[in-house]
Amino acid sequence: MHEGTDDVSKVVLAFSGGLDTTYCAVWLREQGHEVHTVTVNTGGFDGDELALIERRAAQARAASHTLIDARAELFDDYLRYLIFANALRGDVYPLCVSAERVVQARRTAQHAVEIGAAGLAHGSTGAGNDQVRFDVAFRVVAPQLDVLTPIREQGLSREQEAEYLKRHGIDIPLRTARYSYNRGIWGATIGGGETHRSDGVLPEEAYVLTAPPERRPGTREVLEIEFAGGVPVAMSGQGAASAERRPHGAGAGAGRAVELLERLNVVAGRHGVGRGMHVGDTILGIKGRVAFEAPAAVVLIAAHRELEKLVLSRQQAFWKRTLGELYGALLHEGRYFDPLMRDIEAFLASSQQRVSGTVTVQLLGGQAAVLGAASPYSLMNSDLARYGEGSALWSGAEAAAFCKVYGLQDSLLAKAARAAGGAHAAVD
Amino acid sequence: MHEGTDDVSKVVLAFSGGLDTTYCAVWLREQGHEVHTVTVNTGGFDGDELALIERRAAQARAASHTLIDARAELFDDYLRYLIFANALRGDVYPLCVSAERVVQARRTAQHAVEIGAAGLAHGSTGAGNDQVRFDVAFRVVAPQLDVLTPIREQGLSREQEAEYLKRHGIDIPLRTARYSYNRGIWGATIGGGETHRSDGVLPEEAYVLTAPPERRPGTREVLEIEFAGGVPVAMSGQGAASAERRPHGAGAGAGRAVELLERLNVVAGRHGVGRGMHVGDTILGIKGRVAFEAPAAVVLIAAHRELEKLVLSRQQAFWKRTLGELYGALLHEGRYFDPLMRDIEAFLASSQQRVSGTVTVQLLGGQAAVLGAASPYSLMNSDLARYGEGSALWSGAEAAAFCKVYGLQDSLLAKAARAAGGAHAAVD
Amino acid sequence: MHEGTDDVSKVVLAFSGGLDTTYCAVWLREQGHEVHTVTVNTGGFDGDELALIERRAAQARAASHTLIDARAELFDDYLRYLIFANALRGDVYPLCVSAERVVQARRTAQHAVEIGAAGLAHGSTGAGNDQVRFDVAFRVVAPQLDVLTPIREQGLSREQEAEYLKRHGIDIPLRTARYSYNRGIWGATIGGGETHRSDGVLPEEAYVLTAPPERRPGTREVLEIEFAGGVPVAMSGQGAASAERRPHGAGAGAGRAVELLERLNVVAGRHGVGRGMHVGDTILGIKGRVAFEAPAAVVLIAAHRELEKLVLSRQQAFWKRTLGELYGALLHEGRYFDPLMRDIEAFLASSQQRVSGTVTVQLLGGQAAVLGAASPYSLMNSDLARYGEGSALWSGAEAAAFCKVYGLQDSLLAKAARAAGGAHAAVD
Amino acid sequence: MHEGTDDVSKVVLAFSGGLDTTYCAVWLREQGHEVHTVTVNTGGFDGDELALIERRAAQARAASHTLIDARAELFDDYLRYLIFANALRGDVYPLCVSAERVVQARRTAQHAVEIGAAGLAHGSTGAGNDQVRFDVAFRVVAPQLDVLTPIREQGLSREQEAEYLKRHGIDIPLRTARYSYNRGIWGATIGGGETHRSDGVLPEEAYVLTAPPERRPGTREVLEIEFAGGVPVAMSGQGAASAERRPHGAGAGAGRAVELLERLNVVAGRHGVGRGMHVGDTILGIKGRVAFEAPAAVVLIAAHRELEKLVLSRQQAFWKRTLGELYGALLHEGRYFDPLMRDIEAFLASSQQRVSGTVTVQLLGGQAAVLGAASPYSLMNSDLARYGEGSALWSGAEAAAFCKVYGLQDSLLAKAARAAGGAHAAVD
Repeated sequence: MHEGTDDVSKVVLAFSGGLDTTYCAVWLREQGHEVHTVTVNTGGFDGDELALIERRAAQARAASHTLIDARAELFDDYLRYLIFANALRGDVYPLCVSAERVVQARRTAQHAVEIGAAGLAHGSTGAGNDQVRFDVAFRVVAPQLDVLTPIREQGLSREQEAEYLKRHGIDIPLRTARYSYNRGIWGATIGGGETHRSDGVLPEEAYVLTAPPERRPGTREVLEIEFAGGVPVAMSGQGAASAERRPHGAGAGAGRAVELLERLNVVAGRHGVGRGMHVGDTILGIKGRVAFEAPAAVVLIAAHRELEKLVLSRQQAFWKRTLGELYGALLHEGRYFDPLMRDIEAFLASSQQRVSGTVTVQLLGGQAAVLGAASPYSLMNSDLARYGEGSALWSGAEAAAFCKVYGLQDSLLAKAARAAGGAHAAVD
Repeated sequence: MHEGTDDVSKVVLAFSGGLDTTYCAVWLREQGHEVHTVTVNTGGFDGDELALIERRAAQARAASHTLIDARAELFDDYLRYLIFANALRGDVYPLCVSAERVVQARRTAQHAVEIGAAGLAHGSTGAGNDQVRFDVAFRVVAPQLDVLTPIREQGLSREQEAEYLKRHGIDIPLRTARYSYNRGIWGATIGGGETHRSDGVLPEEAYVLTAPPERRPGTREVLEIEFAGGVPVAMSGQGAASAERRPHGAGAGAGRAVELLERLNVVAGRHGVGRGMHVGDTILGIKGRVAFEAPAAVVLIAAHRELEKLVLSRQQAFWKRTLGELYGALLHEGRYFDPLMRDIEAFLASSQQRVSGTVTVQLLGGQAAVLGAASPYSLMNSDLARYGEGSALWSGAEAAAFCKVYGLQDSLLAKAARAAGGAHAAVD
Repeated sequence: MHEGTDDVSKVVLAFSGGLDTTYCAVWLREQGHEVHTVTVNTGGFDGDELALIERRAAQARAASHTLIDARAELFDDYLRYLIFANALRGDVYPLCVSAERVVQARRTAQHAVEIGAAGLAHGSTGAGNDQVRFDVAFRVVAPQLDVLTPIREQGLSREQEAEYLKRHGIDIPLRTARYSYNRGIWGATIGGGETHRSDGVLPEEAYVLTAPPERRPGTREVLEIEFAGGVPVAMSGQGAASAERRPHGAGAGAGRAVELLERLNVVAGRHGVGRGMHVGDTILGIKGRVAFEAPAAVVLIAAHRELEKLVLSRQQAFWKRTLGELYGALLHEGRYFDPLMRDIEAFLASSQQRVSGTVTVQLLGGQAAVLGAASPYSLMNSDLARYGEGSALWSGAEAAAFCKVYGLQDSLLAKAARAAGGAHAAVD
Repeated sequence: MHEGTDDVSKVVLAFSGGLDTTYCAVWLREQGHEVHTVTVNTGGFDGDELALIERRAAQARAASHTLIDARAELFDDYLRYLIFANALRGDVYPLCVSAERVVQARRTAQHAVEIGAAGLAHGSTGAGNDQVRFDVAFRVVAPQLDVLTPIREQGLSREQEAEYLKRHGIDIPLRTARYSYNRGIWGATIGGGETHRSDGVLPEEAYVLTAPPERRPGTREVLEIEFAGGVPVAMSGQGAASAERRPHGAGAGAGRAVELLERLNVVAGRHGVGRGMHVGDTILGIKGRVAFEAPAAVVLIAAHRELEKLVLSRQQAFWKRTLGELYGALLHEGRYFDPLMRDIEAFLASSQQRVSGTVTVQLLGGQAAVLGAASPYSLMNSDLARYGEGSALWSGAEAAAFCKVYGLQDSLLAKAARAAGGAHAAVD
């Protein structure tokens, strides 16, 4: 048993109302704890689900149940930077889960500090990444609190948990579905079945956010997405439904961005956009495969990336890509609280000052294609320069001189190697 | 006029038989040079085109014309590393031109050294990237030779060039087509028209390697691509035509790889796979937009990337991505001869030792989707570990201990910040 | 002759009063320009020198002469970040010249814009780095202005310049000294003589800021340097002369920092601290060797670096080092205006939030040794953790579990390689 | 107790003959194991010490004792790359311990496999880095073997261990010395006393490899060190004792390099060269401070670094520095077996092809100063180019053209920002 469990009385539990966390609530109560459940909504629960979660907390006789809507915070403190970073793990997966889990852990821990709890609990197993994100966040935000993890410690089967709950008067049907889901505004992940192997594709019925081929519109839909300082602020187009163009303004805040994401999930999801499979490294060192549906994330990152190409310097593009990858990797690995993450955020925020403009995106047949982009800061504005057409910016002689000096070191290196008769002399 | 032009007699000219290089051939001859034309084929010319080029060289009264088939060298010394690097500029464009141009310049310069020429010439304008790649390669391989660039120096219009040639008995019809192309085994680029703006899409008829939607097969095609040490060595599947599975073996050499690429360009091109648009930085500092069709490159990089995910360590994946991006950037920027490129090649080659296995790819509706991958080196082999299912590799208590130590520094940093009352204390 | 020279009337010239820039002033005037001289002092000129410069401007009949004290700006916008970055080129050279030259060029160009000049001029030759820094800054700050560079264009010998000036009534003795100097608050560089080869040391008399061995105090001197947010704000110790400890406060501004640097140059220079030789790459591609004396820079960077070790996270230390090196490289290469530099500055500034504390430095026999450091944010504070003494932060069993999981991927990779019988199987 | 301890019979123990490992030998034997001791000498033990170790093994009634001389392997597989990388942790500390520990663990594990042992044991505590390096190496080389760590598991005090041994007939005097040492050919580290704080310096008597000021020669000593392909192959000079110049040749092997290192430790140690203090991050997350003496390592890295400056390209220098830092960091952190390390080694080895030549180093007063370097591959050879003296490699007009194009993107970015009226417009 976990050290110090005995004398802990007030415990705050990160609660989703599922089998694992309901088990935790009851089991911790049975050990004598006063259990306070917290559900942090990052866009994965609708009204019915939130009502069910509240009912479960009551069934588990939680001392209190608190619902925190963290969608705006999720956007402002996390997703904003993932867009800035064009963060796609393994070049495909938009990190649907990592940011959510950190914000859930952080808000849960903050709540525990506020109500003077002595312990913090989560229902993650010992197998995956979530335990790391929870544990680290708990210990950073509330280091003085004990961390309780019944599921990880006891290693029960789902059948054993269900039976225990039944003995305590709670009947949770064992999920017989083949797949498990994690949903939020940055997308859904799907685990189970074919994801346990390195090959095989999910059946159509496994997907929940994206339409199957036969239910997709046969015709293309074109959206205009407006960014201000790297942040998506407005969206318009035939498909944007109620989408009378609603400009938000750069400072309009995260609420509007959340709304835009939720609309875009619907619009792009109708076209089957945003599906994928990714094999990645878990924090504990093994590989895992995951399926995902992230319509809004996939569209926004593609659009943002193409807009950046118009306005960033060559060197910015290179280094932003490396630091963006690093940002995604560290977030994935539960390193959100490393101060390096704040430094990268400062870098990324600085890089976005000129990332304003409009991107045209076509949705069709499961694909989002960026058709074009425009920005007041664009280096492709016709009054500045036009590629390949005999630029007025320099003469042929100037170009020749540039090329000569540009290649000088390579030429000298080759000469030196020849003179020395060394291995590199064979360069030609 | 270029210094030293007068006394140069024997000149080797990189020759494509087009308006610009034919002008160069005639004009250089008229200045008293003995002009030797060299055409380096990197997959962009078929037999008819090669015959036309030879005819043009004769019309221009070149002292000799030499055809060099550099496809195998292109694969072995360049494309191999672009596959290892998963090199896509701006995350989309597979560098169709850069490698070709370097191999063309290098082989041309080597020929000049062999025949004892005094000068080297190319027909690039002063506007783009190719002049840099030619100039640098010429000066590295043959620094003692003069570099002659009539087009860049004279800045004539295409009409003026055509008229000059007509006066010298050569009638080249002015291209009236809206688009210009560069083709090779790593794909084709398309310039002109909409590529001069940052928005707008090309009409279907602009594409030459990929089928338009109405001519694509309506059904999916599934390929199996086999890699050995990172190199594609075999391809099979319904669509692989004559594709009785032809295993090449790791050391089968570049000839087979070239053949595989050419087949894959056809197979994937039929499904419209490999199209894209990219905005990038030119070496001289302006932005340019280019359309491309690269069926084989796009399929191979996607397949290779997913195979790598099974076998590389987490740290390899991160750093290979950064160095791969660097490799592509330097190649694009005409830095092929920087010894750093050899160092990165050594790094990349080392990283590929376990990148062997088979990847299943689906072609349909303009998209290539990787369905799965398998490798004898895979960390997802079931006897090693399986994600998310209560691993036998560690216990819950061990996972808890790992998480505690893993997050220790972040926790200490937060404590120190709180104790000091500083800015970072507000982390929670 | 430079295009557009003829019709330019009002020209602003970056002026040091030396042979080259005096030649420029007279020659430009003789071409019909109204020449306005600007001297930007970055700490390299004392009162006598400034008076001489003013006299020279008058002799050259400049239409106006303007002296700009840019020391505070130099610290605030440049040196601050070089300290944050611990920037030493080639691990030894503190970039004494680069930042100065950019601030000089920038302020000169700003002055030109203010007085409505039509041209900007500098006296750099075509051989070195300074021409690049001047040209780039001129074209960024005042792109509409013509850039005039008589020395680079005419390629005269120093004798020819002196003779020309004599003919115009100005007698500047040809420097017969063996060495040339560039001085500022971030140190002095010495060129000439032995620096033209890759070996050989300068004679003692070549040094101007650092005492020769026989004039150094035989006893050690101990300083305490206080940093706030990465910025040196106070200095005390036996040697700090008038150095009653003068705390500046974090926001005390650049004036105080300049004063601290100037004192430290004297104090550390007395001990011969800060000398070195460095071989580096010039922007145009050749190698150059330079001797330098930078007492304050060398002491501050060593002190700052050791303070950082107490407070940065492991990941911050790694990435700050890489980005700091990049910052120094780009500054050296005339890339100050690339927006990437602003992004790195944001990163660096963020990283310094906890870099506050005191560093003890010993000066003796040409060496500065950091004896210790302390910070309220230190992770070595005894109430947090102590290395190697059976930490109370984790148990032996927890350490064992951590090690097991920590090495898991390496172990799995080795197993997979053995199972596949591949090349990596030979790891052991 | 460790799982599986009971049924393990044959155990191989990494053995140094000190209190901890002697305790392990006896205690494991008492649990019924057949204990085989292995001492891997990496240069830290002389003949007397090796005899003592053997005696202790006998006293502990080890079933066998094996001495492995791993100095040549240490150089060839580890130190070679640390020289290539110029690896200094925190810019000062030459990683004296990390490589040694890995080679010791690896050779011990290989021995265990060879003799068919069922378990592997080491005597590291749970506090530091060594446990990680041992555990990881054991599990990579011999994953099927049990890992036994009595010291870490039992957490006894040194007094308790000594008492236990006394009860079993072995009398090891408790070390009363204030400092503990780790010695090898790459230097010695010193722990204890002042190293437990972030300030304070060690007394002279704490040092074992470097002479105190009063015993150092008052006059300078000049060495010539010759490198071939980045490897030190010969050393000559007044001080190189028996040092009739002994050229080794590039392929002369590690034995000669070991001999060179051992001589250089003596020669440079006489001048007090190579002392330092470093604060660094431990693998488990806390900070630690260590004193070190590494005469040969400090001299060789400084010499090698300066030689590289003559022959590497600008881009090589930048990226080699980053990858070299990464190599050192991963080695320090017990990541030697990550395949990324092999990839970096390939990169580093490639980068060294032209790092051949001679470096002149002066030893005096605790300092090593590089006076100069020469290489047949040097870009500073006078027939190639000379900095700052009106190069014949390009004209003034060519330099001007280069500068114009070089700064073009920065200028366009500034123009675009001004046109857009954005935040970056304020660049000037």
